Amino acid sequence: MTTADSIEQAIAELLPHFGERLSRSQSVCEHHGHGEGYHAQHAPQAVIFAETTEDVAHALRVCNAHRAPVIPFGAGTSLEGQVNAIEGGISIDLSRMTGLLELNTGDMDCRVQAGITRQDLNLLLRDEGLFFPVDPGGEATIGGMCATRASGTGAVRYGTIRENVLGLTVVLADGRIMRVGRRVRKSAMGYDLTHLMIGSEGTLGIITEVQLRLHGIPETMAAAVCQFETLADCVETAVQVMQMSVPIGRMELLDDVQMDACIRYAKLDGYRPIPTMFFEFEGGPEAVREQIATVEAIADDNNGSAFTWSTQAQERAALWKTRHAVFWACLAYRPGYTGISTDAIVPISALTEMILGAKHDIEESGITAPIVGHIGDGNFHTVMLVPPGEAEVEKARALDHKIIARALSLGGSASGEHGVGLAKIGFMPAEHDAVALDVMRTIKRALDPNNILNPGKLLPPPAPPC
Amino acid sequence: MTTADSIEQAIAELLPHFGERLSRSQSVCEHHGHGEGYHAQHAPQAVIFAETTEDVAHALRVCNAHRAPVIPFGAGTSLEGQVNAIEGGISIDLSRMTGLLELNTGDMDCRVQAGITRQDLNLLLRDEGLFFPVDPGGEATIGGMCATRASGTGAVRYGTIRENVLGLTVVLADGRIMRVGRRVRKSAMGYDLTHLMIGSEGTLGIITEVQLRLHGIPETMAAAVCQFETLADCVETAVQVMQMSVPIGRMELLDDVQMDACIRYAKLDGYRPIPTMFFEFEGGPEAVREQIATVEAIADDNNGSAFTWSTQAQERAALWKTRHAVFWACLAYRPGYTGISTDAIVPISALTEMILGAKHDIEESGITAPIVGHIGDGNFHTVMLVPPGEAEVEKARALDHKIIARALSLGGSASGEHGVGLAKIGFMPAEHDAVALDVMRTIKRALDPNNILNPGKLLPPPAPPC
Repeated sequence: MTTADSIEQAIAELLPHFGERLSRSQSVCEHHGHGEGYHAQHAPQAVIFAETTEDVAHALRVCNAHRAPVIPFGAGTSLEGQVNAIEGGISIDLSRMTGLLELNTGDMDCRVQAGITRQDLNLLLRDEGLFFPVDPGGEATIGGMCATRASGTGAVRYGTIRENVLGLTVVLADGRIMRVGRRVRKSAMGYDLTHLMIGSEGTLGIITEVQLRLHGIPETMAAAVCQFETLADCVETAVQVMQMSVPIGRMELLDDVQMDACIRYAKLDGYRPIPTMFFEFEGGPEAVREQIATVEAIADDNNGSAFTWSTQAQERAALWKTRHAVFWACLAYRPGYTGISTDAIVPISALTEMILGAKHDIEESGITAPIVGHIGDGNFHTVMLVPPGEAEVEKARALDHKIIARALSLGGSASGEHGVGLAKIGFMPAEHDAVALDVMRTIKRALDPNNILNPGKLLPPPAPPC
Repeated sequence: MTTADSIEQAIAELLPHFGERLSRSQSVCEHHGHGEGYHAQHAPQAVIFAETTEDVAHALRVCNAHRAPVIPFGAGTSLEGQVNAIEGGISIDLSRMTGLLELNTGDMDCRVQAGITRQDLNLLLRDEGLFFPVDPGGEATIGGMCATRASGTGAVRYGTIRENVLGLTVVLADGRIMRVGRRVRKSAMGYDLTHLMIGSEGTLGIITEVQLRLHGIPETMAAAVCQFETLADCVETAVQVMQMSVPIGRMELLDDVQMDACIRYAKLDGYRPIPTMFFEFEGGPEAVREQIATVEAIADDNNGSAFTWSTQAQERAALWKTRHAVFWACLAYRPGYTGISTDAIVPISALTEMILGAKHDIEESGITAPIVGHIGDGNFHTVMLVPPGEAEVEKARALDHKIIARALSLGGSASGEHGVGLAKIGFMPAEHDAVALDVMRTIKRALDPNNILNPGKLLPPPAPPC
């Protein structure tokens, strides 16, 4: 059992090694007690600023000996309560570990420390003609993205973080340092520990270094906006683009309310607050021309407007900046409200039924909840805008549950990319069969027998015996 | 401890359920005691022909109670000794489980029983305009391909089996049935048990059903052959195609000796026995034209011949049939000899050094060993042609070790796609760090505490304490 005493003992033992890099300041602890989700803050008793893998290993050896909980912390952009120290303990902040340790341009891969953000990495890569395509909304760290199995607008073409990690350095619960994966496109040599760690949200180990696949910046890129009178036509366009296997670069849906919020926030001139799709086309010039012709024909069949084009790099950047800022546009749309994001995903063929159903659920709830989606993946978010008050949060939770239940009944998943954390634990039994959950618990117990790694996250407690 | 007695007791207890589907015939047992590799046959004491997941679950419950080893068997095409019953036990043959249980054309996915072969699946899909792209050489089963993390010529574009499985039904060591994964393009809900099972070679569970991603048959396909005076020019062409991010459909290298064998075996008129590349281009017609222009320019820069085209479906099929028959072409090249395949893989930038180094190692060894490669992945095979006699096998093993050591020193892996089985166990400590190996053993112990699942495969025993 963890006690307040055991945590204090661990902190006392850690102090000589970390010195000023161990903080007990209230503001630092509170800052590390929450992400960007709506969960009540739970501050850790101390925060350690790690600079090396060995720092993390030392901290875990000490915490494991004292059975003190350890919560890894990157940029604090997670949405489902992943970093909240619900059982107290010690937060390990990796945001100073920002090194680009190795860059192999010939193989288009690199090794980074876990605390570098995707934006900073892309700045370092730009002059090499390379980029890293996984782009969740926030200024997330690469390590945090691995831990939560993040994705973003680029996943429809490049896959999620899962498809873009070649290997990891992970510190295990007992402080041992494990390196997994190799710099090859595939391997059939043993258990896939890399993918076991990705999405494990700090409950099986702490990721300190990541070997990433990179991609060449495409020769030609063009972005376009297309507007639709009905949501059904907009979604059906996305479904058909996917079913035709068009290798689309990005394809993002914004519903009428989301467009209204964006038009006001980003001063998007010339657009109407109706269902809208943002497209990006990438590749060689001929391939791009061909993709555009196919997608324009599909959109036209579904009563879409003529495409508005952004071919200059600056225009394109502005368009995607608008897309990445939807959360802020939503907050500005209802000042003083909290934004709570849903994250359901369904098979492509169920997308129209899903989105129209969600729109119906939203209207019925009376909550302002713009819809925005990585529609090519079948993944969409509603940003539920909630006025202050626990009853209002409850109403939003009920809407979220309704949307998730609908997604699960259509063969979908409760989270496309935000992860489980605290918020989605309750859906784990609906999403996974009891045996799979039990195997997850078996693996957790085997790798973290003292349950010090981010306790209380991801895995629901076993059902009590009848 | 397993004893001959405990295996007999398990068989006696299994007989009432399986009746004639439990065979103890010597020929059946011997057939199940080896794959297509060179390892000495180890026959199981009995073979069970499973028809349902519940059959497998029943067998495992009984075998686990008696601690009798269980070895899953699909088509028997594995190359590294994966199916050999080295500790005796009961082989579970899944080749009667050939059902296509579910086909979702709108989502391009399907659910199959593990025993269906990729060829039979593709026959069932053809009229739907869909196909399954993972194509190892043999008539392998989908379940076996999952178990060994197989790939093939299509992996350069479509990924390996790893990227094409959405979910699995797995029977655990104690007979519990586990379903993992959902029919969505991505999910962030919990540990990735699907990828933990893929490549685990029957040591963590027996795969009985697979949810597969499918792909649309491309609008345009064109295959071409290009010949080179030097091996270096041929490999360099492949490296540059990958570094230019050309979305090539397939790209297979055959060295001078391999081409000589193929010309004789498949009566390839008009080709010379020199280093040769087989290409396939896929996509929309414009995209294909663009890819071809890029690749032709690269080949020309590297002194390649003019491309010989196969645009008709029949011609293309003949070309790829020749590629898939290289193993038989090699055996026919040295009648009476055994073919032992190597399977190293390196990062793309190390490919030229690797292949030229392997060619040097082969020449030094005096062994006839044609080189053929999934060159776009950095993966290549040499089919070492070995005359009868243990000393000759030893010579071949030494050459294989030399090639693997070279691959590992260049950051590569000992197996791109054939797996570990018995043959590569010795390389696990060179490929993985000691902590990673220990974590693999921890997971194995947690999920199969009685060590009944394919014992003696994949994981090396821990090093004795000093």
